[in-house]
Amino acid sequence: MMIPLIALGSGIFALLAAFGLIAYINKQPSGNERMKEIAKAIQTGASAYLKRQYKTILIITVILAAILSLLLDWHTGITFVLGAVSSLIAGFVGMWVSVRANLKTAEAARRGNLGKAFVIALRGGAVMGLMLVGLSLIAISSLYIIFGNPEYIVGFGFGASLAALFAQLGGGIYTKAADVGADLVGKVEKGIPEDDPRNPAVIADLVGDNVGDCAGRGADLFESFSDNIIGAMILGLAMGSHWVLFPLFAGIVSVFSTVISLLLIRVKKKLNPVKALNLSVGIVAAINIALFYYLTTTFLGDIRYFYASVVGLATSILIVLITQYYTGDHKPVKTIAKASKTGAATNILTGFAVGLESTALPVIVMAASILISYLLGGIYGIATATLGILSTTAIIMALDTYGPITDNAGGIAEMSKLPKETREITDKLDAIGNTTKAITKGYAMGCAALSAFVLFFAYLQITGLNVIDVAKPIVFVGAFIGVMLPFLFSAFAIKAVGKAAFEIVEEVRRQFREIKGLLRGKAKPDYASCVDISTKSALREMIIPSLLGVITPIVVGVLLGKEAVGALIIGGTVGGITLAMLMNTGGAAWDNAKKYIEAGNFGGKGSPAHKAAVIGDTVGDPFKDTAGPSLHILVKLLNMVSIIFAPIFIGLLLSM
Amino acid sequence: MMIPLIALGSGIFALLAAFGLIAYINKQPSGNERMKEIAKAIQTGASAYLKRQYKTILIITVILAAILSLLLDWHTGITFVLGAVSSLIAGFVGMWVSVRANLKTAEAARRGNLGKAFVIALRGGAVMGLMLVGLSLIAISSLYIIFGNPEYIVGFGFGASLAALFAQLGGGIYTKAADVGADLVGKVEKGIPEDDPRNPAVIADLVGDNVGDCAGRGADLFESFSDNIIGAMILGLAMGSHWVLFPLFAGIVSVFSTVISLLLIRVKKKLNPVKALNLSVGIVAAINIALFYYLTTTFLGDIRYFYASVVGLATSILIVLITQYYTGDHKPVKTIAKASKTGAATNILTGFAVGLESTALPVIVMAASILISYLLGGIYGIATATLGILSTTAIIMALDTYGPITDNAGGIAEMSKLPKETREITDKLDAIGNTTKAITKGYAMGCAALSAFVLFFAYLQITGLNVIDVAKPIVFVGAFIGVMLPFLFSAFAIKAVGKAAFEIVEEVRRQFREIKGLLRGKAKPDYASCVDISTKSALREMIIPSLLGVITPIVVGVLLGKEAVGALIIGGTVGGITLAMLMNTGGAAWDNAKKYIEAGNFGGKGSPAHKAAVIGDTVGDPFKDTAGPSLHILVKLLNMVSIIFAPIFIGLLLSM
Repeated sequence: MMIPLIALGSGIFALLAAFGLIAYINKQPSGNERMKEIAKAIQTGASAYLKRQYKTILIITVILAAILSLLLDWHTGITFVLGAVSSLIAGFVGMWVSVRANLKTAEAARRGNLGKAFVIALRGGAVMGLMLVGLSLIAISSLYIIFGNPEYIVGFGFGASLAALFAQLGGGIYTKAADVGADLVGKVEKGIPEDDPRNPAVIADLVGDNVGDCAGRGADLFESFSDNIIGAMILGLAMGSHWVLFPLFAGIVSVFSTVISLLLIRVKKKLNPVKALNLSVGIVAAINIALFYYLTTTFLGDIRYFYASVVGLATSILIVLITQYYTGDHKPVKTIAKASKTGAATNILTGFAVGLESTALPVIVMAASILISYLLGGIYGIATATLGILSTTAIIMALDTYGPITDNAGGIAEMSKLPKETREITDKLDAIGNTTKAITKGYAMGCAALSAFVLFFAYLQITGLNVIDVAKPIVFVGAFIGVMLPFLFSAFAIKAVGKAAFEIVEEVRRQFREIKGLLRGKAKPDYASCVDISTKSALREMIIPSLLGVITPIVVGVLLGKEAVGALIIGGTVGGITLAMLMNTGGAAWDNAKKYIEAGNFGGKGSPAHKAAVIGDTVGDPFKDTAGPSLHILVKLLNMVSIIFAPIFIGLLLSM
Repeated sequence: MMIPLIALGSGIFALLAAFGLIAYINKQPSGNERMKEIAKAIQTGASAYLKRQYKTILIITVILAAILSLLLDWHTGITFVLGAVSSLIAGFVGMWVSVRANLKTAEAARRGNLGKAFVIALRGGAVMGLMLVGLSLIAISSLYIIFGNPEYIVGFGFGASLAALFAQLGGGIYTKAADVGADLVGKVEKGIPEDDPRNPAVIADLVGDNVGDCAGRGADLFESFSDNIIGAMILGLAMGSHWVLFPLFAGIVSVFSTVISLLLIRVKKKLNPVKALNLSVGIVAAINIALFYYLTTTFLGDIRYFYASVVGLATSILIVLITQYYTGDHKPVKTIAKASKTGAATNILTGFAVGLESTALPVIVMAASILISYLLGGIYGIATATLGILSTTAIIMALDTYGPITDNAGGIAEMSKLPKETREITDKLDAIGNTTKAITKGYAMGCAALSAFVLFFAYLQITGLNVIDVAKPIVFVGAFIGVMLPFLFSAFAIKAVGKAAFEIVEEVRRQFREIKGLLRGKAKPDYASCVDISTKSALREMIIPSLLGVITPIVVGVLLGKEAVGALIIGGTVGGITLAMLMNTGGAAWDNAKKYIEAGNFGGKGSPAHKAAVIGDTVGDPFKDTAGPSLHILVKLLNMVSIIFAPIFIGLLLSM
């Protein structure tokens, strides 16, 4: 009972640390009236979106909880609600801070203090990281103390999964619809620059960066973190109480290494942001390795699990390096940029080929990681590798949220017409934001793949299945449907962005047409209506694809039985992860090919190559920010739904 | 022994029928000198390509045969060579006829005889259909008579697979490189129309239609047909001699129903080409159903196998109907056309979403077909369903080859400046060609999926595996790599088209620059050099991706063992088929969205929507004509390689 209590204490400590950071950020100066006004608009937009989204999610959650309680048992229903609500709280607080830290970062930049601006952005991001780890630890350890069995906590994971899918998909649709709407009418049709206050969709666009990257990715990692700990605890059941409790350490370790790292990264006059970010991750990794060595040798008494945790860490580093190769200024991105010279079609084809190719190495790395950790310590070895990755979640989440904070700070500087020097500082900070975004997406993808695999074993253990034999036609069919599902899901996600963007485009055009003097800067646009339309359409469009992920395993289970669902999960995992890599990496590569041209290559900004690259970037947007990241969550959701609904997988057709 | 002899006789009869058709076509008038000259250029180009391609394939075949004989046994080596050579002969003869029937069709059209032109094109196509069925039947039945065991014939299937992959991939790269090269410089840069004799790449483009659609698809269906019969015979081994021999009937039935159908479709003054084509397939289907009823009830003595064969036929019809819905003038294509109004990016995204969505229904249909035929007659029931589909191969192949013949006839008419009335007739015939192409691609995809599944069971039987348990990490890893492989393969295929097209573009530009008076029609272009460059680059680029399909299962087998290879096959099949559907259907939908706009919708030809749709069409080209159809073959090749190399799948890592 000691360890769950330590976990509970660490969780509370993480929340206190997060509140400490919030207090630090609130204390910082807020800048001039114009800046405050813009920040206020972003805050209002973000909270309007979150309120409406949360209402939708809560209604669905309550209905599903009632169904779960009736169909299965009350504790699944309650833990399910708890999982969804915890995820929403973590997202809410994280975003609340992030839409305030942006203003403080902009103000520090205005005062010419790069070091301060950096630290505010990083600490603002860290709130989200600590919140998610803290809440997850508190909930899981309390539930374990109450029920004494991790199998009773799976409802929590399911709730976290469903909330995450809604948050990521809804946020992804919102951010891309607003982005496309702002660009298509503002930049292309009216010829006004990015982040121009005359653009009616500019606030929606800035809000979008937060609801997509910050709240969406936060929910994704909250889910990976929680699902993984629960899954690993279930796998530990077969091995003894030490093995059930060990996964909680991954969370405890994460809290302490992150707090220490944050304390060590302080404001300096001459701070190099890239070095500082690398250092923050390096400190966390070093502490985690040391602690894992201590814990595996003393608590589990087996050094092989230490090696497995190192394999996990190495896997996440390799995937990040591969992602950087394909999306940074290296051969693939340069090839796409070069292909833009012969037009949009060759740009698209080259980018697509890069995306397809980029799936190979990560799959091989993940396969090797699964094999090695399995040979080291069996199924629990794989779980330990995943825990090794997860112990860096809080700091990675901080890096991720750093992105929208600095991006927004730049937007505030631009819209408040702050001097060029300010913009230079925010641009410097924002440039790393794009890299960290690509990195965290690769990290989230790796987490999702290995988490899904751990959950799959938890599914086997809970259902008592020993074998998933795809040589049986009925089981094979499950795998076939599983691989197809991510394709269908992505179709819905991409179409949703199209529909929502179309509505924004119409609205922005209407405002330019009807509000006299808007283009000349004599009148103010109606920002709120764009925020409102983005919100409504994102929430409307997120429901069907999300339910697809819930209903498919249930239908397959009821008709074809538990083993076919096992194959469905496997097919969905490998198909979903591969497709997600294609979309994430391809999308980021298109984006950076455009930036590479904008940096003056192949004719630079405004050249025919640049026009072609802009088309590629627009194609890549819903790939990398809507469909791709949502697939991570779909993959985990399929597993959680299957674990929860396993009792009703009777396999009607099997009796024929 | 009677049945193999009947099969042998039927095969010879099919060849005789094909020669009869060749004689009929040769007898037809050839048109004026200008027409003959152009046809001659196409013939020379096609045979130059085939000769060089065949040389490359034969070298690789001989090397591999030596390896097979050393590593395994001599009969595998010999049957392997035989399979490759048979496939090449079928392709060669089919193409030889097709590049002659095009001229005769054009001449019949010049004389205003639509009925005659249609019949020549159909019969020209039927030569390929009858050749492939005939050669396959002759080879398989002779080998069975010699060896008395279908397991000794698998080398033949492997040879057919490898030749098919080279033919389809090489042909696919050739045709799209030439097409893009001709369009990009001719149409876009120089503003000259399609099929204009001033365009140096125009002959290469016309040759491409033949080497891609005709020779490529022919090799694909030759392989499906052969692999399936061999696979089903192997499955029959466990059930008795009747079951081993029954698959040969699928070929016999196919020969007779096709010949009868061709005899019934005669030259009429007022012939409706669409009705006539439907009628030809209808006759074949009706005869096949009747014969299958007779054969299953008398020879197998079990009517459930008749139902299974009907399930197979129904599956192919449903897949064709779904393909038509997504690629014809229905909602999906109209949505893409409409999205073109807001530019290339929305056109691409909408088309991509259509492609993603189009995977769902065919997967459900195939899943249902596998389940129903399995419930009807076990594994052999699934094999029978596949035989039901295959019995229509010859006529479907005729429809497919009809496409390039009428397309070429139109090209010859255009380049010979024949009167408008001639072009009207060839356009009428060619319009159906686009539909039949989409249909046969859907058909080939369905065949590939079910063939692969039958071969998978043959793999299980030959290796003695009862279970492919993806719950084992080592086996799961096989499935993961299997799903990734088609992505990597497609990356190579798409990049290959890009590289080859780039070389053609440079050459066409060079000719326009260096040959004085070319654009004014005062000088002749150097057609041969474009043909030569397309050939060289297609052959260079086809090798690595093809070897990827051979080497991957061997590496996985040697390292991870037989069961992991089983999972690799399953993963490769479902991943490859799903990705192929995305590419085939998406590509065809983009193509037809462009045609829909050209028909006068959303601004018609030359409008901004049309420009966007042209970009979408160019992106779709290598999807639907290179990567997509090659994936069908990759899927079957993976199976054949695994069956052949199973003895060396020792699983080095398993002992760790």
